[in-house]
Amino acid sequence: MRSVKIARTIIELNTLLNQYRISSTIGFVPTMGALHQGHLSLINESKMQCNFTVCSIFVNPTQFNDKKDLERYPRTEDEDLKLLKEANCDLVFLPSVLEMYPEPDKRVFDFGTLDKVLDGEARPGHFNGVAQIVSKLFDIVKPTKAFFGLKDYQQVLIIKALVKQLNFNIEIIACPILREKDGLAMSSRNALLNVSERKLAALIPQLMSSIPSLITAGYSFNRILLHFETKFLANGYNLDYLKLANAQTLQIENDFTDNHQQIVLIACFVGKIRLIDNLLL
Amino acid sequence: MRSVKIARTIIELNTLLNQYRISSTIGFVPTMGALHQGHLSLINESKMQCNFTVCSIFVNPTQFNDKKDLERYPRTEDEDLKLLKEANCDLVFLPSVLEMYPEPDKRVFDFGTLDKVLDGEARPGHFNGVAQIVSKLFDIVKPTKAFFGLKDYQQVLIIKALVKQLNFNIEIIACPILREKDGLAMSSRNALLNVSERKLAALIPQLMSSIPSLITAGYSFNRILLHFETKFLANGYNLDYLKLANAQTLQIENDFTDNHQQIVLIACFVGKIRLIDNLLL
Repeated sequence: MRSVKIARTIIELNTLLNQYRISSTIGFVPTMGALHQGHLSLINESKMQCNFTVCSIFVNPTQFNDKKDLERYPRTEDEDLKLLKEANCDLVFLPSVLEMYPEPDKRVFDFGTLDKVLDGEARPGHFNGVAQIVSKLFDIVKPTKAFFGLKDYQQVLIIKALVKQLNFNIEIIACPILREKDGLAMSSRNALLNVSERKLAALIPQLMSSIPSLITAGYSFNRILLHFETKFLANGYNLDYLKLANAQTLQIENDFTDNHQQIVLIACFVGKIRLIDNLLL
Repeated sequence: MRSVKIARTIIELNTLLNQYRISSTIGFVPTMGALHQGHLSLINESKMQCNFTVCSIFVNPTQFNDKKDLERYPRTEDEDLKLLKEANCDLVFLPSVLEMYPEPDKRVFDFGTLDKVLDGEARPGHFNGVAQIVSKLFDIVKPTKAFFGLKDYQQVLIIKALVKQLNFNIEIIACPILREKDGLAMSSRNALLNVSERKLAALIPQLMSSIPSLITAGYSFNRILLHFETKFLANGYNLDYLKLANAQTLQIENDFTDNHQQIVLIACFVGKIRLIDNLLL
Protein backbone atom coordinates (compact mmCIF):
# COMPACT_ATOMS: atom_id res chain seq x y z
CA MET A 1 0.00 0.00 0.00
CA ARG A 2 1.51 3.33 -1.06
CA SER A 3 1.37 6.06 1.58
CA VAL A 4 -0.90 8.96 0.69
CA LYS A 5 0.86 12.33 0.22
CA ILE A 6 -0.50 15.15 2.39
CA ALA A 7 -0.50 18.88 1.56
CA ARG A 8 -1.84 21.49 4.01
CA THR A 9 -0.92 24.58 1.99
CA ILE A 10 -1.35 25.57 -1.68
CA ILE A 11 2.44 25.74 -2.03
CA GLU A 12 2.85 22.20 -0.66
CA LEU A 13 0.09 21.02 -3.01
CA ASN A 14 1.78 22.53 -6.06
CA THR A 15 5.17 21.15 -5.02
CA LEU A 16 3.67 17.64 -4.93
CA LEU A 17 1.29 18.04 -7.90
CA ASN A 18 3.05 20.17 -10.55
CA GLN A 19 5.26 17.30 -11.71
CA TYR A 20 2.12 15.31 -12.66
CA ARG A 21 0.17 18.10 -14.36
CA ILE A 22 1.37 17.46 -17.92
CA SER A 23 1.89 13.70 -18.05
CA SER A 24 -1.11 12.70 -15.93
CA THR A 25 -4.84 13.19 -15.96
CA ILE A 26 -5.74 14.52 -12.51
CA GLY A 27 -8.94 13.35 -10.85
CA PHE A 28 -10.31 15.44 -7.98
CA VAL A 29 -12.73 14.49 -5.19
CA PRO A 30 -13.59 17.51 -3.01
CA THR A 31 -15.00 16.49 0.39
CA MET A 32 -15.74 17.87 3.85
CA GLY A 33 -14.21 14.77 5.44
CA ALA A 34 -15.97 12.28 7.75
CA LEU A 35 -15.48 9.96 4.80
CA HIS A 36 -17.75 6.99 4.13
CA GLN A 37 -18.17 4.41 1.36
CA GLY A 38 -19.91 7.03 -0.78
CA HIS A 39 -16.77 9.17 -0.80
CA LEU A 40 -14.58 6.12 -1.40
CA SER A 41 -16.70 5.17 -4.43
CA LEU A 42 -15.82 8.63 -5.86
CA ILE A 43 -12.11 8.00 -5.15
CA ASN A 44 -12.36 4.62 -6.87
CA GLU A 45 -14.15 6.12 -9.89
CA SER A 46 -11.42 8.77 -10.11
CA LYS A 47 -8.72 6.10 -9.97
CA MET A 48 -10.49 4.24 -12.79
CA GLN A 49 -10.74 7.33 -15.04
CA CYS A 50 -7.55 9.27 -14.13
CA ASN A 51 -3.97 8.36 -13.33
CA PHE A 52 -3.52 10.74 -10.36
CA THR A 53 -6.22 11.27 -7.73
CA VAL A 54 -6.45 14.24 -5.36
CA CYS A 55 -8.94 14.34 -2.47
CA SER A 56 -9.53 17.54 -0.52
CA ILE A 57 -10.87 17.59 3.03
CA PHE A 58 -12.15 21.01 4.06
CA VAL A 59 -15.22 21.85 6.14
CA ASN A 60 -16.14 25.05 4.30
CA PRO A 61 -17.62 27.61 6.70
CA THR A 62 -19.14 29.78 3.96
CA GLN A 63 -21.61 27.08 2.88
CA PHE A 64 -23.12 26.59 6.36
CA ASN A 65 -26.11 28.89 6.87
CA ASP A 66 -26.59 27.31 10.33
CA LYS A 67 -23.67 27.86 12.80
CA LYS A 68 -24.81 24.90 14.95
CA ASP A 69 -24.68 22.67 11.88
CA LEU A 70 -21.09 23.83 11.21
CA GLU A 71 -20.04 23.22 14.83
CA ARG A 72 -21.52 19.74 15.02
CA TYR A 73 -20.33 18.67 11.55
CA PRO A 74 -18.21 15.52 12.15
CA ARG A 75 -14.40 15.85 11.88
CA THR A 76 -12.47 12.57 11.73
CA GLU A 77 -9.14 13.43 10.08
CA ASP A 78 -7.09 10.44 11.29
CA GLU A 79 -9.77 7.95 10.21
CA ASP A 80 -10.20 9.80 6.88
CA LEU A 81 -6.46 9.59 6.14
CA LYS A 82 -6.47 5.88 6.99
CA LEU A 83 -9.37 5.27 4.55
CA LEU A 84 -7.73 7.36 1.80
CA LYS A 85 -4.49 5.42 2.27
CA GLU A 86 -6.37 2.13 1.96
CA ALA A 87 -8.12 3.48 -1.17
CA ASN A 88 -4.68 4.33 -2.65
CA CYS A 89 -5.61 8.00 -3.05
CA ASP A 90 -2.47 9.74 -4.33
CA LEU A 91 -2.72 13.12 -2.59
CA VAL A 92 -4.85 14.68 0.15
CA PHE A 93 -5.27 18.46 0.40
CA LEU A 94 -6.07 19.54 3.99
CA PRO A 95 -6.04 23.35 3.98
CA SER A 96 -6.85 25.62 6.93
CA VAL A 97 -9.68 28.17 6.73
CA LEU A 98 -7.06 30.95 6.52
CA GLU A 99 -5.30 29.16 3.65
CA MET A 100 -8.55 28.99 1.65
CA TYR A 101 -9.82 32.44 2.72
CA PRO A 102 -6.78 34.74 3.13
CA GLU A 103 -9.38 37.46 2.54
CA PRO A 104 -13.16 37.08 2.89
CA ASP A 105 -14.59 35.80 -0.40
CA LYS A 106 -17.16 38.46 -1.30
CA ARG A 107 -18.32 36.93 -4.59
CA VAL A 108 -22.05 36.54 -5.13
CA PHE A 109 -23.00 33.86 -7.68
CA ASP A 110 -26.24 33.48 -9.60
CA PHE A 111 -27.31 30.24 -11.28
CA GLY A 112 -30.84 31.23 -12.20
CA THR A 113 -33.46 28.74 -10.99
CA LEU A 114 -30.87 26.16 -9.92
CA ASP A 115 -29.73 27.91 -6.73
CA LYS A 116 -33.09 29.45 -5.78
CA VAL A 117 -35.24 26.36 -5.21
CA LEU A 118 -35.11 23.38 -2.83
CA ASP A 119 -31.93 23.56 -0.67
CA GLY A 120 -31.18 26.96 -2.25
CA GLU A 121 -34.42 28.17 -0.69
CA ALA A 122 -34.17 26.15 2.54
CA ARG A 123 -30.50 27.01 3.16
CA PRO A 124 -29.93 30.66 2.11
CA GLY A 125 -26.35 31.26 0.97
CA HIS A 126 -25.49 27.56 1.02
CA PHE A 127 -24.87 27.16 -2.72
CA ASN A 128 -23.08 30.52 -2.91
CA GLY A 129 -20.61 29.13 -0.37
CA VAL A 130 -20.36 25.90 -2.35
CA ALA A 131 -19.63 27.86 -5.54
CA GLN A 132 -16.99 29.94 -3.70
CA ILE A 133 -15.06 26.96 -2.30
CA VAL A 134 -15.40 24.69 -5.35
CA SER A 135 -14.23 27.43 -7.75
CA LYS A 136 -11.27 28.12 -5.42
CA LEU A 137 -10.41 24.40 -5.20
CA PHE A 138 -10.71 24.04 -9.01
CA ASP A 139 -8.31 26.98 -9.42
CA ILE A 140 -5.85 25.45 -6.96
CA VAL A 141 -5.98 21.76 -7.96
CA LYS A 142 -6.64 22.39 -11.70
CA PRO A 143 -8.03 18.85 -12.20
CA THR A 144 -8.89 17.12 -15.48
CA LYS A 145 -12.06 15.64 -13.97
CA ALA A 146 -13.91 16.22 -10.70
CA PHE A 147 -16.22 13.68 -9.06
CA PHE A 148 -19.44 14.44 -7.13
CA GLY A 149 -22.13 12.23 -5.62
CA LEU A 150 -25.72 12.37 -6.89
CA LYS A 151 -27.12 12.42 -3.33
CA ASP A 152 -26.47 16.16 -3.62
CA TYR A 153 -28.29 16.28 -6.96
CA GLN A 154 -28.89 20.06 -6.92
CA GLN A 155 -25.21 20.64 -6.10
CA VAL A 156 -24.14 18.57 -9.11
CA LEU A 157 -26.28 20.70 -11.47
CA ILE A 158 -24.91 23.91 -9.90
CA ILE A 159 -21.28 22.72 -10.21
CA LYS A 160 -21.92 21.92 -13.89
CA ALA A 161 -23.39 25.41 -14.36
CA LEU A 162 -20.41 26.92 -12.48
CA VAL A 163 -17.94 25.14 -14.78
CA LYS A 164 -19.77 26.46 -17.84
CA GLN A 165 -20.22 30.02 -16.50
CA LEU A 166 -16.53 30.29 -15.51
CA ASN A 167 -15.07 28.39 -18.54
CA PHE A 168 -13.38 25.78 -16.35
CA ASN A 169 -11.79 23.12 -18.55
CA ILE A 170 -12.90 20.40 -16.13
CA GLU A 171 -15.21 17.42 -16.71
CA ILE A 172 -17.76 16.92 -13.93
CA ILE A 173 -18.51 13.25 -13.25
CA ALA A 174 -21.73 12.58 -11.30
CA CYS A 175 -21.65 9.26 -9.41
CA PRO A 176 -24.57 7.18 -8.10
CA ILE A 177 -25.84 7.36 -4.51
CA LEU A 178 -24.46 4.69 -2.22
CA ARG A 179 -26.86 3.35 0.42
CA GLU A 180 -26.71 1.53 3.75
CA LYS A 181 -28.25 -1.98 4.05
CA ASP A 182 -31.60 -0.43 5.03
CA GLY A 183 -31.45 1.92 2.05
CA LEU A 184 -30.48 5.14 3.84
CA ALA A 185 -28.35 7.27 1.53
CA MET A 186 -24.79 7.40 2.86
CA SER A 187 -23.95 10.77 4.42
CA SER A 188 -21.42 12.10 6.90
CA ARG A 189 -24.37 13.42 8.89
CA ASN A 190 -25.68 9.87 9.48
CA ALA A 191 -22.95 9.52 12.11
CA LEU A 192 -24.70 12.25 14.11
CA LEU A 193 -27.92 10.22 14.50
CA ASN A 194 -28.52 8.36 17.75
CA VAL A 195 -29.66 4.73 17.59
CA SER A 196 -33.40 5.44 17.57
CA GLU A 197 -33.01 8.31 15.10
CA ARG A 198 -30.91 6.05 12.88
CA LYS A 199 -33.71 3.46 12.88
CA LEU A 200 -36.32 6.12 12.06
CA ALA A 201 -34.20 7.46 9.20
CA ALA A 202 -34.79 4.24 7.26
CA LEU A 203 -38.33 5.53 6.64
CA ILE A 204 -36.91 8.00 4.08
CA PRO A 205 -35.64 5.40 1.57
CA GLN A 206 -38.66 3.18 2.30
CA LEU A 207 -41.05 5.95 1.29
CA MET A 208 -38.91 7.18 -1.61
CA SER A 209 -38.60 3.71 -3.10
CA SER A 210 -42.37 3.26 -2.88
CA ILE A 211 -43.01 6.22 -5.20
CA PRO A 212 -42.74 4.39 -8.57
CA SER A 213 -45.43 1.85 -7.58
CA LEU A 214 -47.63 4.66 -6.20
CA ILE A 215 -47.31 6.46 -9.56
CA THR A 216 -48.24 3.23 -11.37
CA ALA A 217 -51.24 2.94 -9.04
CA GLY A 218 -52.32 6.38 -10.33
CA TYR A 219 -51.48 8.51 -7.30
CA SER A 220 -50.99 12.23 -7.99
CA PHE A 221 -47.87 13.90 -6.59
CA ASN A 222 -49.98 15.83 -4.07
CA ARG A 223 -51.54 12.57 -2.89
CA ILE A 224 -48.05 11.10 -2.40
CA LEU A 225 -46.95 14.25 -0.57
CA LEU A 226 -49.91 13.93 1.80
CA HIS A 227 -49.01 10.26 2.33
CA PHE A 228 -45.40 11.24 3.21
CA GLU A 229 -46.49 14.02 5.56
CA THR A 230 -48.79 11.62 7.43
CA LYS A 231 -46.05 9.00 7.76
CA PHE A 232 -43.47 11.54 8.95
CA LEU A 233 -45.90 13.07 11.42
CA ALA A 234 -46.75 9.60 12.78
CA ASN A 235 -43.02 8.95 13.32
CA GLY A 236 -42.54 12.38 14.89
CA TYR A 237 -40.07 14.02 12.60
CA ASN A 238 -40.23 17.01 10.31
CA LEU A 239 -40.44 16.95 6.56
CA ASP A 240 -38.54 20.05 5.34
CA TYR A 241 -39.69 19.55 1.77
CA LEU A 242 -40.76 16.86 -0.67
CA LYS A 243 -40.77 18.29 -4.18
CA LEU A 244 -41.15 17.19 -7.78
CA ALA A 245 -38.92 18.95 -10.31
CA ASN A 246 -37.70 18.90 -13.89
CA ALA A 247 -34.53 16.80 -13.61
CA GLN A 248 -32.54 19.15 -15.90
CA THR A 249 -33.71 22.64 -14.83
CA LEU A 250 -35.02 21.88 -11.28
CA GLN A 251 -38.12 23.91 -12.14
CA ILE A 252 -40.64 22.79 -9.50
CA GLU A 253 -43.60 20.90 -11.03
CA ASN A 254 -47.04 20.05 -9.68
CA ASP A 255 -47.56 16.57 -11.06
CA PHE A 256 -45.97 13.78 -13.02
CA THR A 257 -45.44 13.98 -16.78
CA ASP A 258 -43.90 11.83 -19.49
CA ASN A 259 -42.72 14.90 -21.47
CA HIS A 260 -39.34 15.11 -19.75
CA GLN A 261 -37.38 13.44 -16.97
CA GLN A 262 -38.45 14.38 -13.45
CA ILE A 263 -36.90 13.93 -10.02
CA VAL A 264 -38.39 13.77 -6.53
CA LEU A 265 -36.23 15.49 -3.89
CA ILE A 266 -36.66 15.24 -0.14
CA ALA A 267 -35.16 17.02 2.86
CA CYS A 268 -36.18 16.26 6.43
CA PHE A 269 -35.06 16.61 10.00
CA VAL A 270 -34.51 13.49 12.06
CA GLY A 271 -34.10 15.04 15.48
CA LYS A 272 -31.70 17.94 14.89
CA ILE A 273 -30.08 16.30 11.87
CA ARG A 274 -31.12 17.33 8.36
CA LEU A 275 -30.98 14.55 5.78
CA ILE A 276 -31.62 14.70 2.02
CA ASP A 277 -32.28 12.11 -0.66
CA ASN A 278 -33.70 12.02 -4.16
CA LEU A 279 -35.21 9.67 -6.74
CA LEU A 280 -34.87 10.09 -10.51
CA LEU A 281 -38.09 8.99 -12.21
CA MET B 1 11.84 37.20 -36.16
CA ARG B 2 9.82 34.26 -34.84
CA SER B 3 6.19 34.26 -35.92
CA VAL B 4 3.73 34.75 -33.07
CA LYS B 5 1.44 31.78 -32.36
CA ILE B 6 -2.30 32.59 -32.47
CA ALA B 7 -5.08 30.84 -30.49
CA ARG B 8 -8.74 31.80 -30.90
CA THR B 9 -10.21 29.11 -28.65
CA ILE B 10 -9.35 27.83 -25.17
CA ILE B 11 -8.60 24.41 -26.65
CA GLU B 12 -6.17 25.92 -29.19
CA LEU B 13 -4.55 27.93 -26.37
CA ASN B 14 -4.02 24.84 -24.22
CA THR B 15 -2.70 22.85 -27.18
CA LEU B 16 -0.05 25.53 -27.74
CA LEU B 17 0.61 26.37 -24.07
CA ASN B 18 0.42 23.13 -22.06
CA GLN B 19 3.86 21.96 -23.18
CA TYR B 20 5.42 25.09 -21.61
CA ARG B 21 3.50 25.07 -18.32
CA ILE B 22 6.01 23.07 -16.27
CA SER B 23 9.37 24.05 -17.71
CA SER B 24 8.60 27.73 -18.32
CA THR B 25 7.48 30.73 -16.33
CA ILE B 26 4.49 32.15 -18.21
CA GLY B 27 4.06 35.93 -18.40
CA PHE B 28 0.61 37.26 -19.31
CA VAL B 29 -0.42 40.65 -20.70
CA PRO B 30 -4.22 40.96 -20.96
CA THR B 31 -5.27 43.74 -23.37
CA MET B 32 -8.28 45.03 -25.30
CA GLY B 33 -6.10 45.51 -28.39
CA ALA B 34 -5.46 48.76 -30.25
CA LEU B 35 -1.96 48.22 -28.95
CA HIS B 36 0.46 51.10 -28.35
CA GLN B 37 3.93 51.48 -26.85
CA GLY B 38 2.41 51.23 -23.36
CA HIS B 39 1.20 47.71 -24.11
CA LEU B 40 4.51 46.82 -25.75
CA SER B 41 6.38 47.95 -22.63
CA LEU B 42 4.30 45.35 -20.71
CA ILE B 43 5.22 42.69 -23.30
CA ASN B 44 8.89 43.62 -22.97
CA GLU B 45 8.73 43.52 -19.17
CA SER B 46 7.10 40.08 -19.39
CA LYS B 47 9.84 38.87 -21.73
CA MET B 48 12.46 40.13 -19.26
CA GLN B 49 10.87 38.36 -16.27
CA CYS B 50 9.38 35.22 -17.86
CA ASN B 51 10.46 32.77 -20.55
CA PHE B 52 7.09 32.47 -22.31
CA THR B 53 4.83 35.48 -22.94
CA VAL B 54 1.10 35.34 -23.70
CA CYS B 55 -0.87 38.42 -24.77
CA SER B 56 -4.67 38.35 -24.92
CA ILE B 57 -6.70 40.71 -27.11
CA PHE B 58 -10.35 40.82 -26.12
CA VAL B 59 -12.67 43.82 -26.00
CA ASN B 60 -14.66 42.73 -22.96
CA PRO B 61 -18.30 43.82 -23.28
CA THR B 62 -19.11 43.32 -19.58
CA GLN B 63 -16.76 46.12 -18.46
CA PHE B 64 -18.34 48.80 -20.67
CA ASN B 65 -21.10 50.62 -18.82
CA ASP B 66 -21.53 52.83 -21.92
CA LYS B 67 -22.67 50.99 -25.11
CA LYS B 68 -21.42 53.85 -27.34
CA ASP B 69 -17.99 53.56 -25.71
CA LEU B 70 -17.97 49.81 -26.51
CA GLU B 71 -19.03 50.40 -30.13
CA ARG B 72 -16.44 53.08 -30.77
CA TYR B 73 -13.61 51.31 -28.95
CA PRO B 74 -10.81 50.93 -31.56
CA ARG B 75 -10.23 47.47 -33.08
CA THR B 76 -7.00 47.04 -35.06
CA GLU B 77 -6.29 43.29 -35.05
CA ASP B 78 -3.92 43.13 -38.04
CA GLU B 79 -1.79 46.02 -36.76
CA ASP B 80 -1.83 44.51 -33.24
CA LEU B 81 -0.57 41.14 -34.52
CA LYS B 82 2.19 42.90 -36.49
CA LEU B 83 3.34 44.76 -33.36
CA LEU B 84 3.22 41.59 -31.21
CA LYS B 85 5.26 39.74 -33.83
CA GLU B 86 7.86 42.53 -33.83
CA ALA B 87 7.89 42.41 -30.00
CA ASN B 88 8.55 38.64 -30.17
CA CYS B 89 5.45 37.86 -28.13
CA ASP B 90 5.19 34.04 -28.01
CA LEU B 91 1.43 33.54 -28.11
CA VAL B 92 -1.65 35.70 -28.73
CA PHE B 93 -5.07 34.68 -27.41
CA LEU B 94 -7.88 36.19 -29.52
CA PRO B 95 -11.12 34.67 -28.20
CA SER B 96 -14.64 35.49 -29.38
CA VAL B 97 -17.26 36.83 -26.96
CA LEU B 98 -19.03 33.45 -27.11
CA GLU B 99 -15.76 31.65 -26.27
CA MET B 100 -15.26 33.80 -23.15
CA TYR B 101 -18.95 33.91 -22.19
CA PRO B 102 -20.52 30.56 -23.18
CA GLU B 103 -23.03 31.51 -20.50
CA PRO B 104 -23.62 35.01 -19.07
CA ASP B 105 -21.20 35.60 -16.19
CA LYS B 106 -23.52 36.43 -13.30
CA ARG B 107 -20.84 36.87 -10.63
CA VAL B 108 -20.97 40.01 -8.52
CA PHE B 109 -17.63 40.97 -6.94
CA ASP B 110 -16.99 43.23 -3.96
CA PHE B 111 -13.61 44.83 -3.23
CA GLY B 112 -14.69 47.13 -0.43
CA THR B 113 -13.68 50.75 -1.00
CA LEU B 114 -11.51 49.92 -4.01
CA ASP B 115 -14.33 49.38 -6.50
CA LYS B 116 -16.77 51.96 -5.09
CA VAL B 117 -14.81 55.21 -5.61
CA LEU B 118 -13.41 57.10 -8.62
CA ASP B 119 -14.00 55.06 -11.82
CA GLY B 120 -15.98 52.56 -9.72
CA GLU B 121 -18.40 55.38 -8.98
CA ALA B 122 -18.20 57.06 -12.40
CA ARG B 123 -18.54 53.81 -14.38
CA PRO B 124 -21.03 51.54 -12.54
CA GLY B 125 -20.29 47.85 -13.16
CA HIS B 126 -16.99 48.58 -14.91
CA PHE B 127 -14.72 46.92 -12.35
CA ASN B 128 -17.14 44.02 -11.91
CA GLY B 129 -16.72 43.33 -15.62
CA VAL B 130 -12.95 43.70 -15.28
CA ALA B 131 -12.92 41.19 -12.39
CA GLN B 132 -15.07 38.78 -14.42
CA ILE B 133 -12.86 38.79 -17.51
CA VAL B 134 -9.50 38.91 -15.70
CA SER B 135 -10.44 36.01 -13.39
CA LYS B 136 -11.59 34.02 -16.45
CA LEU B 137 -8.37 34.81 -18.34
CA PHE B 138 -6.26 33.91 -15.29
CA ASP B 139 -8.09 30.56 -15.08
CA ILE B 140 -7.54 29.90 -18.77
CA VAL B 141 -3.93 31.10 -19.21
CA LYS B 142 -2.75 30.15 -15.67
CA PRO B 143 0.23 32.54 -15.83
CA THR B 144 3.13 32.81 -13.39
CA LYS B 145 3.05 36.60 -13.58
CA ALA B 146 0.58 39.09 -15.10
CA PHE B 147 1.50 42.61 -16.19
CA PHE B 148 -0.71 45.71 -15.91
CA GLY B 149 -0.09 49.41 -16.59
CA LEU B 150 -0.27 51.96 -13.78
CA LYS B 151 -2.31 54.38 -15.92
CA ASP B 152 -5.24 52.27 -14.70
CA TYR B 153 -4.06 52.61 -11.10
CA GLN B 154 -7.41 51.66 -9.52
CA GLN B 155 -7.60 48.58 -11.76
CA VAL B 156 -4.16 47.44 -10.58
CA LEU B 157 -5.23 47.61 -6.92
CA ILE B 158 -8.45 45.73 -7.71
CA ILE B 159 -6.59 43.01 -9.63
CA LYS B 160 -4.23 42.58 -6.67
CA ALA B 161 -7.26 42.30 -4.34
CA LEU B 162 -8.89 39.81 -6.77
CA VAL B 163 -5.77 37.62 -6.75
CA LYS B 164 -5.75 37.60 -2.93
CA GLN B 165 -9.51 37.06 -2.57
CA LEU B 166 -9.52 34.15 -5.05
CA ASN B 167 -6.15 32.59 -4.00
CA PHE B 168 -4.68 32.93 -7.49
CA ASN B 169 -1.02 31.86 -7.41
CA ILE B 170 -0.11 34.72 -9.78
CA GLU B 171 2.26 37.65 -9.22
CA ILE B 172 0.84 40.98 -10.40
CA ILE B 173 3.49 43.29 -11.87
CA ALA B 174 2.48 46.97 -12.10
CA CYS B 175 4.38 48.86 -14.82
CA PRO B 176 4.95 52.61 -15.19
CA ILE B 177 2.80 54.86 -17.38
CA LEU B 178 4.23 55.54 -20.84
CA ARG B 179 3.62 59.03 -22.25
CA GLU B 180 3.58 60.74 -25.64
CA LYS B 181 6.11 63.52 -26.36
CA ASP B 182 3.68 66.11 -24.98
CA GLY B 183 3.17 64.07 -21.82
CA LEU B 184 -0.26 62.60 -22.61
CA ALA B 185 -0.54 59.14 -21.03
CA MET B 186 -0.61 56.50 -23.78
CA SER B 187 -4.09 55.02 -24.26
CA SER B 188 -5.94 53.19 -27.01
CA ARG B 189 -8.60 55.89 -26.71
CA ASN B 190 -6.12 58.61 -27.78
CA ALA B 191 -6.59 57.32 -31.34
CA LEU B 192 -10.23 58.43 -31.14
CA LEU B 193 -9.31 62.11 -30.60
CA ASN B 194 -9.43 64.47 -33.57
CA VAL B 195 -6.48 66.79 -34.17
CA SER B 196 -7.79 69.71 -32.09
CA GLU B 197 -8.94 67.38 -29.29
CA ARG B 198 -5.54 65.70 -29.32
CA LYS B 199 -3.87 69.12 -28.88
CA LEU B 200 -6.24 70.02 -26.04
CA ALA B 201 -5.57 66.70 -24.29
CA ALA B 202 -1.99 67.81 -23.57
CA LEU B 203 -3.46 70.08 -20.91
CA ILE B 204 -4.04 67.03 -18.69
CA PRO B 205 -0.36 66.09 -18.20
CA GLN B 206 0.59 69.78 -18.10
CA LEU B 207 -1.73 70.40 -15.16
CA MET B 208 -0.95 67.09 -13.44
CA SER B 209 2.80 67.65 -13.63
CA SER B 210 2.35 71.12 -12.14
CA ILE B 211 0.85 69.72 -8.92
CA PRO B 212 4.11 69.04 -7.00
CA SER B 213 5.27 72.66 -7.40
CA LEU B 214 1.79 73.94 -6.46
CA ILE B 215 1.96 71.80 -3.28
CA THR B 216 5.40 73.21 -2.52
CA ALA B 217 3.92 76.68 -3.04
CA GLY B 218 1.47 75.85 -0.27
CA TYR B 219 -1.69 75.35 -2.35
CA SER B 220 -4.42 73.23 -0.73
CA PHE B 221 -5.94 70.40 -2.78
CA ASN B 222 -9.22 72.32 -3.09
CA ARG B 223 -7.32 75.32 -4.42
CA ILE B 224 -5.64 73.08 -7.00
CA LEU B 225 -9.02 71.53 -7.90
CA LEU B 226 -10.47 75.03 -8.49
CA HIS B 227 -7.42 75.87 -10.62
CA PHE B 228 -8.00 72.71 -12.70
CA GLU B 229 -11.74 73.36 -13.10
CA THR B 230 -11.06 76.91 -14.33
CA LYS B 231 -8.47 75.73 -16.84
CA PHE B 232 -10.69 72.92 -18.15
CA LEU B 233 -13.68 75.26 -18.42
CA ALA B 234 -11.58 77.79 -20.32
CA ASN B 235 -10.55 75.08 -22.78
CA GLY B 236 -14.14 73.86 -23.07
CA TYR B 237 -13.96 70.31 -21.83
CA ASN B 238 -15.41 68.48 -18.90
CA LEU B 239 -13.56 67.38 -15.83
CA ASP B 240 -15.24 64.15 -14.67
CA TYR B 241 -13.28 64.09 -11.42
CA LEU B 242 -10.00 65.18 -9.90
CA LYS B 243 -9.50 63.43 -6.58
CA LEU B 244 -6.90 62.95 -3.91
CA ALA B 245 -6.72 59.49 -2.34
CA ASN B 246 -4.71 57.23 -0.07
CA ALA B 247 -2.45 55.43 -2.57
CA GLN B 248 -2.94 52.03 -0.86
CA THR B 249 -6.64 52.06 0.06
CA LEU B 250 -7.99 54.67 -2.40
CA GLN B 251 -9.89 56.23 0.49
CA ILE B 252 -10.71 59.74 -0.80
CA GLU B 253 -8.92 62.48 1.18
CA ASN B 254 -9.52 66.20 1.45
CA ASP B 255 -5.99 67.54 1.59
CA PHE B 256 -2.35 66.60 1.41
CA THR B 257 -0.59 64.77 4.24
CA ASP B 258 2.86 63.35 4.92
CA ASN B 259 1.44 60.50 7.02
CA HIS B 260 1.09 58.12 4.08
CA GLN B 261 1.52 58.02 0.31
CA GLN B 262 -1.20 59.78 -1.66
CA ILE B 263 -2.21 59.82 -5.31
CA VAL B 264 -4.05 62.35 -7.45
CA LEU B 265 -6.39 60.76 -10.00
CA ILE B 266 -8.10 62.50 -12.88
CA ALA B 267 -10.80 61.58 -15.38
CA CYS B 268 -12.09 64.00 -17.99
CA PHE B 269 -13.92 64.13 -21.29
CA VAL B 270 -12.15 65.61 -24.30
CA GLY B 271 -15.08 65.83 -26.68
CA LYS B 272 -16.81 62.43 -26.37
CA ILE B 273 -13.63 60.64 -25.31
CA ARG B 274 -12.98 59.92 -21.65
CA LEU B 275 -9.33 60.00 -20.61
CA ILE B 276 -7.73 59.17 -17.24
CA ASP B 277 -4.36 59.84 -15.68
CA ASN B 278 -2.81 59.86 -12.22
CA LEU B 279 0.14 61.17 -10.26
CA LEU B 280 1.69 59.42 -7.26
CA LEU B 281 2.85 62.03 -4.72
